[in-house]
Amino acid sequence: MNRTYTKELREHIGKEVRLKGWVHRVRDLGAISFLVLRDFTGLAQVVSDKIDVKLETVVDIVGKVVENEKSPEGVELQMYSLTILSEPQADLPISVNSNHEIYGMDVLLNKRILSLRNPKLRSVFEIQSGILEAFATVLREKSFFEIKSSKLINSGTEGGTGLFEVNYFNTKVFLSQSPQFYKQAAVSMGLEKVFEIGAAYRAEKHETNRHLNEYISLDLELGFIDDIRVLFDLERDILAAVFQTLKQKYQKQLDIWSVELPDPDSVSSIPELSYEEAKDIAKSTSGTQVMEIDGNAEKILSEWAKEKFGISAVFIYGYPRRKRPFYTMPDGNKTKSFDCIFNGVEITSGGLRIHDYQMLCDNAKRFGMDLAPLEDYLSIFQFACPPHGGFAIGLERLTQKILGIDNVKLASLFPRDRNRVSP
Amino acid sequence: MNRTYTKELREHIGKEVRLKGWVHRVRDLGAISFLVLRDFTGLAQVVSDKIDVKLETVVDIVGKVVENEKSPEGVELQMYSLTILSEPQADLPISVNSNHEIYGMDVLLNKRILSLRNPKLRSVFEIQSGILEAFATVLREKSFFEIKSSKLINSGTEGGTGLFEVNYFNTKVFLSQSPQFYKQAAVSMGLEKVFEIGAAYRAEKHETNRHLNEYISLDLELGFIDDIRVLFDLERDILAAVFQTLKQKYQKQLDIWSVELPDPDSVSSIPELSYEEAKDIAKSTSGTQVMEIDGNAEKILSEWAKEKFGISAVFIYGYPRRKRPFYTMPDGNKTKSFDCIFNGVEITSGGLRIHDYQMLCDNAKRFGMDLAPLEDYLSIFQFACPPHGGFAIGLERLTQKILGIDNVKLASLFPRDRNRVSP
Repeated sequence: MNRTYTKELREHIGKEVRLKGWVHRVRDLGAISFLVLRDFTGLAQVVSDKIDVKLETVVDIVGKVVENEKSPEGVELQMYSLTILSEPQADLPISVNSNHEIYGMDVLLNKRILSLRNPKLRSVFEIQSGILEAFATVLREKSFFEIKSSKLINSGTEGGTGLFEVNYFNTKVFLSQSPQFYKQAAVSMGLEKVFEIGAAYRAEKHETNRHLNEYISLDLELGFIDDIRVLFDLERDILAAVFQTLKQKYQKQLDIWSVELPDPDSVSSIPELSYEEAKDIAKSTSGTQVMEIDGNAEKILSEWAKEKFGISAVFIYGYPRRKRPFYTMPDGNKTKSFDCIFNGVEITSGGLRIHDYQMLCDNAKRFGMDLAPLEDYLSIFQFACPPHGGFAIGLERLTQKILGIDNVKLASLFPRDRNRVSP
Repeated sequence: MNRTYTKELREHIGKEVRLKGWVHRVRDLGAISFLVLRDFTGLAQVVSDKIDVKLETVVDIVGKVVENEKSPEGVELQMYSLTILSEPQADLPISVNSNHEIYGMDVLLNKRILSLRNPKLRSVFEIQSGILEAFATVLREKSFFEIKSSKLINSGTEGGTGLFEVNYFNTKVFLSQSPQFYKQAAVSMGLEKVFEIGAAYRAEKHETNRHLNEYISLDLELGFIDDIRVLFDLERDILAAVFQTLKQKYQKQLDIWSVELPDPDSVSSIPELSYEEAKDIAKSTSGTQVMEIDGNAEKILSEWAKEKFGISAVFIYGYPRRKRPFYTMPDGNKTKSFDCIFNGVEITSGGLRIHDYQMLCDNAKRFGMDLAPLEDYLSIFQFACPPHGGFAIGLERLTQKILGIDNVKLASLFPRDRNRVSP
């Protein structure tokens, strides 16, 4: 008999089915026992006169589906047989079926193999899978090519600090901080519109609720644009696609986290503020001094946008030159760059790039950079390069802010921080 | 005026349009000049009385579309104006518009930024984008979740040799050889069916036409299976989806490489051979001794399958235990494992895995392995794990074998080998 999933039980009332999954809960009432079986589609109540099985055992259960108003799902399985497929070898160090918040984050991360079985913690990665799908799908529809670039680099385009060193045969290389170089190269080589989903590494000793030393960067870059608003609209389309996909396919997971997503159409209302306007609004809204757009200002601006435009997001453009990487297209003392703030945190950084070789060399020098280590990077522009721009979204941070998770580490399957390199 | 792409010119006969792209070719006949403009959709012929512009200049050209039987595309653009968007700063060290085979591979890789502009070499990555799309799409349709796991690991599940070492704050970690541990963990945690597209690293000093030190692994793993034929059928569906997607969206690129892909339906004919049968067939077909399935036998078997079943691919299952990793599900002295050979090369390795904790510990010891470094890996099975299996396809190798590219390095955007870490 083929396997039936728990979410399909309603379609089989009166019939015999086979369920497979984990023993989520067992309750022995003497004359009758209840077992809650968990599979990736949900939970199902199973009843029998006697069930003696450890929690988290993997089982194969055959039985008859009957309606039962008192069962959480409205149906239950009257068990005929139970076969053990795999049994725990040790006592469970943490409980899978209780609220994960009874454990500290370190416990949840140390016991990751088990804590991820908690349906709420697992649902984070179902949502994340939906984000990955939406990002790739909407860009493919717009004729972007997906690229995969090397993560082993000679030197950093971001300046060389904060890089992890790799012993590579008889030399040293570094783990890439971003695919910036390669996605610009892909535009210059003529793919014109590209995206990359890949790991990025930052050897920074931060200990915050929004940083990871290894994260997944959703990157894109496109040629023949000279207006930053093209990038705003592209990010709006991506966010709308993410909201749409999650609502369509992952409503159950959104419900677990009690999240009400913005309406996909509401992205058109995300306001565009200049850096100065953003500071002024943060200042006048909070009634305090705002010298720069820091974490606190990002929160204030998100709340302001939520109240005024119905969506907790803003684009901030025109950052000062000193605040952006040397390859950012200047605009007087400002730059043609932007951040996107969503639910109180910067999820995106991007902008137009310098595509002129000489301007780029001059700007690198202005930033006090040595041109020699930039040779590979500069070679992108040596043989002509179209005007272009792009941006990157941090996958884990977007997941975190969509679900309202306290710490971004819980939005990484197996997070890496200064002290954590396992499991 | 909005930009028109070269492939759309036919739709605009008699109208004024704006093209943007690279100057691919210029021919000055005195009274009249021809320019071939290249964008990511193709080439277009532009005519004017005088065109004086360097090859590879990025230009914006406005003109009128007219029919011309003698033009390669049947239409051409009568130029009104040409604006230079970006100009090469140096002479081109290699030619973009000629056959790339006039250059050795090292030249093509050293001058990667420029050699990738060659439409044929660029098309490799358009095809690769199509493979990525097909792989993810077919698995999403089958309810697989996409995961992203850490590439920084404590120790290797494959045994600890061939690992690149990373200096990670005050400790040493390694670059992951495969997401084997994490994809099995994802099954055990209850996502049940997962795939991952990510980088894998091998610190091996090989110098062959089919190895890379950094490559993209298309990985999948699924729970609640105990028959290896489920994996064969899954790989058949993936290959069919790849062939289908490429035929639908990338026929032009296939034509550039003169590739005729197998019919997507023909994947059902891929034969399944036991390891012994495969050796016997290789032996009787070639008339030589065949002690094991090496590169030569893989070629012979592909040709045999092409002749007998109409598709140049075979599944070989039941490899001896000593030839497979310790976590492979045994079957007497054999294993429930398989390889898929396509166009003469192994593109996939996979099988059922041991899901029983004690059996896994025993098998690790049998392989002479120390259990202590395997602690994280073993913890996946400590709290019960469903029967499961999976496989991995090398993206670059599949790209290489589909297009018939000599060396896999040309199927990696920016390949890494023992001596190459840039650009």
